[in-house]
Amino acid sequence: MKISVYAAYDHVVERTFREQQVVVIDLLRATTTILTALLSGAKCVLPVAEVESAMSLAAHIQGDFLLAGERKAVLIQGFDLGNSPFEYTPEVVEGKSIIFTTTNGSRALQRVASAPRIWLGCLRNAAAVADAMLGFGLDATIVCAGTGGRFTIDDFLAAGCILDRLQERVHQPPDLNDLGVVALDVYRRHRFHLFDLLRQAGHYGVLMESGFERDIQYCMQEDVETVVPRFADGAVTLL
Amino acid sequence: MKISVYAAYDHVVERTFREQQVVVIDLLRATTTILTALLSGAKCVLPVAEVESAMSLAAHIQGDFLLAGERKAVLIQGFDLGNSPFEYTPEVVEGKSIIFTTTNGSRALQRVASAPRIWLGCLRNAAAVADAMLGFGLDATIVCAGTGGRFTIDDFLAAGCILDRLQERVHQPPDLNDLGVVALDVYRRHRFHLFDLLRQAGHYGVLMESGFERDIQYCMQEDVETVVPRFADGAVTLL
Repeated sequence: MKISVYAAYDHVVERTFREQQVVVIDLLRATTTILTALLSGAKCVLPVAEVESAMSLAAHIQGDFLLAGERKAVLIQGFDLGNSPFEYTPEVVEGKSIIFTTTNGSRALQRVASAPRIWLGCLRNAAAVADAMLGFGLDATIVCAGTGGRFTIDDFLAAGCILDRLQERVHQPPDLNDLGVVALDVYRRHRFHLFDLLRQAGHYGVLMESGFERDIQYCMQEDVETVVPRFADGAVTLL
Repeated sequence: MKISVYAAYDHVVERTFREQQVVVIDLLRATTTILTALLSGAKCVLPVAEVESAMSLAAHIQGDFLLAGERKAVLIQGFDLGNSPFEYTPEVVEGKSIIFTTTNGSRALQRVASAPRIWLGCLRNAAAVADAMLGFGLDATIVCAGTGGRFTIDDFLAAGCILDRLQERVHQPPDLNDLGVVALDVYRRHRFHLFDLLRQAGHYGVLMESGFERDIQYCMQEDVETVVPRFADGAVTLL
């Protein structure tokens, strides 16, 4: 199995993942929050890249829906929900479609929309993602959403964690690209003190300043969920 | 001092380095070979991105020159020299201009040509690069040439080494972007066994298969030279 890790969605070109499964990671917080929303009973999550697209989708959607998302870690005016997983309780989201726009996570999903299978990964479902990848069997591309096209430590650690879980499950270690080799190495060397590295991440500082420490703690928990959201035909749902 | 590391030249946009000094790294082998050529007495190295540009430059240049470079680690037909540092002896290059084309290193230099100061870095002059950066004083962008726009372990280790030397020299640690944090961390954790990681690099395999093991050993030696090549007005020369 060949696995290539990319540090930002705009480093990925279609021909590299056309016949591959893709895992999209936006650890802090989009993919963690989408996972939480679905576990709380949301019918589906509809990721869109722009606020305007969210509004126009809202005008056409059938059934109950919520407008959700963030710009630079802040709630969008007129929206129902931000990007904190703690907002996505069953009382709020059960049975509803969530129109979801975040800068990097949504764009990453749009970017890889033509892949034959698209998983959403984070630390909370890292082992489950590894199982899903092995079950599907194709070579894989792991796309860190990044921030504005740039490498971020948070997504990178999650990529390393998924590679670690994958490697634990196979006899023949996967063939990794250079960034995958480093992601696995960095995760393994820091696995019992991930915060030492995370604390130096730019986005960690942004979230801490905005009062989201509890969100970070939640997003950093590993292997507590056993499901993997899947993106297909414009919607994210649970398997 | 703020320092941003980028994994490939096409991740870099001009506005980010307009008022910064830039260090370009193509460890295996362009920046190591250019350093060697200049230390052997070459008058200057003229990096060009395309073979055709090399030929047309050759038609207009005054004085003795050599055509040099590689495509995928292989000598270009009709050229005088490849990309192995061992070819660049004083007997061969002294007093001559070297027209030099390699896929990634030359393109990285072209990409940042508008920066106020451009250094060429590798492991052999890592400490000297740190000194040059501190002397110049501006914020810095470190550009790993990468391979075809992708992250490579070799350039990344050299970036980490330069950051390590820089950090050793200052009281106030530089403010690093996320990739810089990881580069420094990975270098420091592997510094006494860099080959454990390097052996997993894609480009390491390519060079080994082409019989360039001695080149790799040479390129991996740290702090053996005290000079820093500088790129200005289309030419690389020593300070």
